Amino acid sequence: MLTFIGLGLFDEYDISLKGLEAVREADLVYAEFYTSCLMGTNPEKMEKLYGKKVHLLSREDVEQQPDWLDKAKDKNVAFLTGGDTMVSTTHVDLRLRAEKLGIETHLIHGASIASAVSGLTGLQNYRFGKSASIPYPYESRRGAIIISETPYDTIKQNSELGLHTMIFLDIDKDKGYMTANHALELLLEVEKRRGEGIMERAVAVGIARAGSEKPVVKADYAESLKDFDFGNPLHILVVPGKLHFLEAEALVKLAAGPGKIMEETE
Amino acid sequence: MLTFIGLGLFDEYDISLKGLEAVREADLVYAEFYTSCLMGTNPEKMEKLYGKKVHLLSREDVEQQPDWLDKAKDKNVAFLTGGDTMVSTTHVDLRLRAEKLGIETHLIHGASIASAVSGLTGLQNYRFGKSASIPYPYESRRGAIIISETPYDTIKQNSELGLHTMIFLDIDKDKGYMTANHALELLLEVEKRRGEGIMERAVAVGIARAGSEKPVVKADYAESLKDFDFGNPLHILVVPGKLHFLEAEALVKLAAGPGKIMEETE
Repeated sequence: MLTFIGLGLFDEYDISLKGLEAVREADLVYAEFYTSCLMGTNPEKMEKLYGKKVHLLSREDVEQQPDWLDKAKDKNVAFLTGGDTMVSTTHVDLRLRAEKLGIETHLIHGASIASAVSGLTGLQNYRFGKSASIPYPYESRRGAIIISETPYDTIKQNSELGLHTMIFLDIDKDKGYMTANHALELLLEVEKRRGEGIMERAVAVGIARAGSEKPVVKADYAESLKDFDFGNPLHILVVPGKLHFLEAEALVKLAAGPGKIMEETE
Repeated sequence: MLTFIGLGLFDEYDISLKGLEAVREADLVYAEFYTSCLMGTNPEKMEKLYGKKVHLLSREDVEQQPDWLDKAKDKNVAFLTGGDTMVSTTHVDLRLRAEKLGIETHLIHGASIASAVSGLTGLQNYRFGKSASIPYPYESRRGAIIISETPYDTIKQNSELGLHTMIFLDIDKDKGYMTANHALELLLEVEKRRGEGIMERAVAVGIARAGSEKPVVKADYAESLKDFDFGNPLHILVVPGKLHFLEAEALVKLAAGPGKIMEETE
C-alpha cells in the first residue's frame, strides 16, 4: 500500500491528525521536497514528531528509478510532500506506476497554497483563471538570456476575462527559491518588451510564508511592489483582475494596498 | 483574538495539529457549517476530540448579528469551517469586521476541495480555468422554473481555452446537498435549450466524499455519468477541457473513464 500524504504549508504541525496517524503506522516513510517544501521545519524535526525515519528522495529517485516503490507491494509505505498531495504531475505519474504494479494507493490531503492564497488575500477563489508559473531565465545556446513570456500571456488572457492570476514561482536546486520581487522584475521586463500595458498599470499581491504564524501579504502597483521586502521564502504572487468591492477592501485593509483600487471596483 | 481554522475535508481527524492546538487553547469555539460541512463527523465527535464546547452559528449569526464577534475583543476565539478557511466571501467580510473592531485575526489552513480535486482526478491544477457553481433551480414570480445558464457559459469559455472547469454544487438548507447527477441533468437541460454542443460530447468527472477512506471518482461522458451511483454527499463535478496524455491516462485508470479519451489528448 502506498499512501500519499500532503504535509500542508509551513511546518511539521501542518499535517492533519489523519496524516500523522498514517505516518506513524507506516512501515517505511519517504518524502520529496523538490517540487515544494516546508520552510518552517526540517527532516530532523519531522522525524522527532513522527517517531520514524524519513527517507528523502531526489528528483531522480522519484521520476527515474523508483526502486523504493517496489517495497509498497508488500509493505505499508507513506510518501510525503509539501502542500496538498498529488498536485504535481510527477505524483500523478508515480501513482499510475504504483497502480500498474498492483499497489493500492490512498491520498491524505493537506492544506494547499492554491486555496490559502484566497484566504490570505481575500480574493475569491471562483474569480481566478488559469494559473501561471514563472521559471528562472535561462541562457540560450547563442548566449542570449531567455525570459519566458508565457506568464505574461496568461495574465493578459485572464485580465481580459476580468479574472485573477495566481503565479507559482520557480524552485531551483541551484538558484534557490524565486522571490516575488524577482518575479515582478521579470514580468515588468516582458512588459517593456511587449508594451501591451498589462503589468504597467497592474496591482499585484505578494504573499510570503503562507501558513506561518506571521505571513506577509502586501498589495501594491507592480512597479512599487517589486521593491518591497517580503523576507524569507516561500513567496507567491497574484495579479488580480477586476476586483469586487469586498476584494478591494480586503486588499486595502488586510494587505496594505493602495486606497485608489477601491475606486475601480465592479 | 479571532483565529479562523479550516477543518479540512471529511471528518474531525482532518484538522491539522496546529489547528487542534489552537482550538484547545481557545476560550470560545464557534463553527459554521452552512457554507460547507464535514460529512464524516458531527459536532459531538468534534467536541469530544477538542475537549471543548462547539457553538454552532447559523447564517444569520455569521452575517447579520455577529454579537459573538465582540467576545473576540478580549477573549481567544476560534472560528471553525469546513475545507480551508476564509474561502467563502462571508468569511472575508467577517474578518474585515473583526479588524474594524480592533480584533487581531489569524488563519490556520486546512485541506480544500479545490486542490483535492486535482489530486483525486489527476487533472493538473494549472490547467483549470474559472470555477463555476450550480445553484438549485428556482421558481420565478410567474411560476416558471429558472435554471441558471452561468455554469454552462463558464464551461464553454474554459473549454474554448482548453481549460478544465471545477463545479461546486449547491448546499441548501431545505433542498439538501446537490448530487453530481442532478448537476449533470441541469447542464444537459441547458444544453438541450442552447444546443451549442458543449455538454453533448463532454466528458465529466464526478467526485464523492473527497477526504474519506474511500472517495468515489468516476469519469464518463456526461450523458452516461448522470446515471452513475455516487453514493452519499458531498459531491463535486469537473468538466475537463483539453487533456494531456497523462491526465487522460489518470482518468481512464484511476477514475474508470472511457478508453476513447486517450485518443483525443494533446
